[in-house]
Amino acid sequence: MKKSVNKHLYALILAGGVGSRFWPFSRELEPKQFLNITGQGSLIQNTIRRLDKVVAPSNIYIISRNTYFYELKKQIKKFNIPESNILLEPQAKNTAPAIGLGSKFIAKLDKDAIVIVLPSDHYVPDYDNFRACIFKAAQIACLNFLVTIGIRPKRQSSGYGYIKVDRTKLFKLENRNIFYKVEKFFEKPSLEKIKKHFKGTDYFWNSGIFVWKASEFMDELKAYLPDLYKKIMSIRNNNDLVRVWKRVTPISVDYGILEHSKKIALIAANFSWADLGSWDALNEVLAKDVNGNVFQADSLDLGSKETCVFSRGNRLIATIGLEGLVIADTPDALLVCDRHKSQEVRKLIDDLKSLRRKEHIRHLCEKRPWGSYTVLQVGEGFKIKLVEIDPKKRLSLQSHSKRAEHWVVVHGCAKVTYSNKTKTVKSNQSIYIPKGTKHRLENITNLPLKIVEVQTGNYLEEDDIKRFEDDFDRLL
Amino acid sequence: MKKSVNKHLYALILAGGVGSRFWPFSRELEPKQFLNITGQGSLIQNTIRRLDKVVAPSNIYIISRNTYFYELKKQIKKFNIPESNILLEPQAKNTAPAIGLGSKFIAKLDKDAIVIVLPSDHYVPDYDNFRACIFKAAQIACLNFLVTIGIRPKRQSSGYGYIKVDRTKLFKLENRNIFYKVEKFFEKPSLEKIKKHFKGTDYFWNSGIFVWKASEFMDELKAYLPDLYKKIMSIRNNNDLVRVWKRVTPISVDYGILEHSKKIALIAANFSWADLGSWDALNEVLAKDVNGNVFQADSLDLGSKETCVFSRGNRLIATIGLEGLVIADTPDALLVCDRHKSQEVRKLIDDLKSLRRKEHIRHLCEKRPWGSYTVLQVGEGFKIKLVEIDPKKRLSLQSHSKRAEHWVVVHGCAKVTYSNKTKTVKSNQSIYIPKGTKHRLENITNLPLKIVEVQTGNYLEEDDIKRFEDDFDRLL
Repeated sequence: MKKSVNKHLYALILAGGVGSRFWPFSRELEPKQFLNITGQGSLIQNTIRRLDKVVAPSNIYIISRNTYFYELKKQIKKFNIPESNILLEPQAKNTAPAIGLGSKFIAKLDKDAIVIVLPSDHYVPDYDNFRACIFKAAQIACLNFLVTIGIRPKRQSSGYGYIKVDRTKLFKLENRNIFYKVEKFFEKPSLEKIKKHFKGTDYFWNSGIFVWKASEFMDELKAYLPDLYKKIMSIRNNNDLVRVWKRVTPISVDYGILEHSKKIALIAANFSWADLGSWDALNEVLAKDVNGNVFQADSLDLGSKETCVFSRGNRLIATIGLEGLVIADTPDALLVCDRHKSQEVRKLIDDLKSLRRKEHIRHLCEKRPWGSYTVLQVGEGFKIKLVEIDPKKRLSLQSHSKRAEHWVVVHGCAKVTYSNKTKTVKSNQSIYIPKGTKHRLENITNLPLKIVEVQTGNYLEEDDIKRFEDDFDRLL
Repeated sequence: MKKSVNKHLYALILAGGVGSRFWPFSRELEPKQFLNITGQGSLIQNTIRRLDKVVAPSNIYIISRNTYFYELKKQIKKFNIPESNILLEPQAKNTAPAIGLGSKFIAKLDKDAIVIVLPSDHYVPDYDNFRACIFKAAQIACLNFLVTIGIRPKRQSSGYGYIKVDRTKLFKLENRNIFYKVEKFFEKPSLEKIKKHFKGTDYFWNSGIFVWKASEFMDELKAYLPDLYKKIMSIRNNNDLVRVWKRVTPISVDYGILEHSKKIALIAANFSWADLGSWDALNEVLAKDVNGNVFQADSLDLGSKETCVFSRGNRLIATIGLEGLVIADTPDALLVCDRHKSQEVRKLIDDLKSLRRKEHIRHLCEKRPWGSYTVLQVGEGFKIKLVEIDPKKRLSLQSHSKRAEHWVVVHGCAKVTYSNKTKTVKSNQSIYIPKGTKHRLENITNLPLKIVEVQTGNYLEEDDIKRFEDDFDRLL
């Protein structure tokens, strides 16, 4: 195989997770893969960039969740990936069902397809070696192996799955490439077990990047997860999917298939890699100052060490004499955490859930298919929002039964429909939408439109909305 | 002297400082003494409460700065202290000039006055023993001593002035009361010096609470700071004050007088006391959980110890595995600080000053004589404020040359004057004030009035204001 785009080479990017350990930056409605966490573009965009010169854009498939569709569409727009390449799960069911669904879809299009399965939240700055490694893996996949990319452990960590290779089974390819037969998979073993047993060069971290023939994977799925296989094969349309997916049991591909299959091969990655599993992992990949600090914020420090400050707000963050902390600041939630305990953010999320709070679900600035809005203040009987509408986009034709809205245009020009009339409202002009009035807000220009919305009423929640027409299929 | 209010007993409360080490809660325009830092009322209000049954309200004088006049008036309203008892320095000049000015004022009213000088930012929960101690000090002051209340040191700290007493000069009063002659004052000696020399029961912390005859203090001022004395005596009216005060050299009463005077006596405080000099000091006086934490915030913690979280905002503050930190959160600035380094906040303030930032000067929610306003968002060409006008108060009659204003009333009812017309604007109604229009906003009701103000224009700073009439003397 030459180092050119092979027409049977496909990518399946897994983009349905939340990445909740990156809270408060990640939220259920704004998952980690969409965030520009490293300051170098969003993680999913960088995942796609790495595939340039490896897989043709038309062969890149992304499996995600319904909820993320519009944001995903926005994020992949520049890469010429067809919208129909976005596969949507009604609910997240862990990796085995998602990969099964995607592989079936791709295998149906091309029976000789070789699929590169990629998480959407990895950090791989070295594109050239990554690509070379993928091509090598594809060659091995042609020999009917399920190929996993192994990472040589940098330290003992309970944050990774481990793979043990069988060094007596070492293969050569074209007299150069070397790969191993896998002896055993271990899904995130305890630190105690790792320290005791997982020593020496037989052990690798599981990167979660896999390369295999779609047909070969489906065979293994049939062998080891026959019920899931049957369910996936029964899906003929979206209605089937919705019906079937409810009954699918979540299971990881590692646990469900890779731990059992006899066909697993491993090649060692020769590119630098981080899975950015938690705030602490991010600390490893970013440039630090002389004291080991990272400041991605409007910050002022006196004498801190090994401390990372990240901000999504515009507040000043002042630090004095800190050591080994992570500070992550957003307008409605702040995290201050011992960096060696950043895995525990997951527990925090559990607490937030059981307290029925909202800070793990949405940001104050919430994305919408037509743009975004930011809640600036909530008071007794009123709510203030800054609403931003993208060029050539419009909100639904809607009405509210419990609130009136005052709009002041502060940037751009709005077309406002209300009570079957339309009106142009320019910057420094305002309009009043009484309670119960059918209305629509539209940006017909090529420039962003910004509106301050002051809502008044006794009930000001998002669910007080009746939609009559919508460009984004949200009538139900 | 009986334990009743003595008509010659006066209080002089010093309320001109900023308390900058309590940043980001304290700001130049909202100093520590006005803050409800302990959750038990503002520090200056508690200072006044402690004087109940000691000094008649009409004998309580407060010396502060011009800038703080309206807030001070609001805060002391409930205590029946006459407004004319507020003495205002044009600029803060440290304690000796302030006490001199106040003492001269009081001495003129009552040549037999005994003055209790009190900082406005102390924490003294034990009112009964405080009062008993003050009465005892007043008795000693009658013997022409300058009496200082000494605190037995709780630890070695460079945050306090130290006083050495001469144990060979121990006095009795009415066969019961014991006080010491002071040998020497040391204004905040270094920790090194303290550890080496300041041992044993001869040393006390200087509480900064003094009791003396006004006439006696003026004599000592004349003796040891003759230039300041002459300047103060030359002041006959407010114009004199403004003119003279510019040329007054700042100096502390400790350094300028107490270190030199031969008439100093000390009585040991038998009440619990904290000067709340820094965040760490606050930690000492507040109730803690089993792990030694204080949470005065909407907070969620996993396993932190000896950590204090204070909030003036409404964000969630999540903490994991912290130890010995202070977190102080406000809408525009966050401090995360090793609690043993909380003295260094002062250095931060110096940095903010040299960076010409504003976070040390004002809060986003800024108090005004008529109420307050909060900046919610600043964008290109617009600014959004929530304006709250107290009952029966009104803003100045004003105009802006560079901005228009859209007002939406969200609570209460406004009387709006614009272009020589007046209009009543109720809740859920709005009004537009074009650029250049003379206008006035007024709350004629007995209920609070809240208005969302959307400003539009190319220049949106506070100094774009022309005032034509004002209830608060701000025409210049």
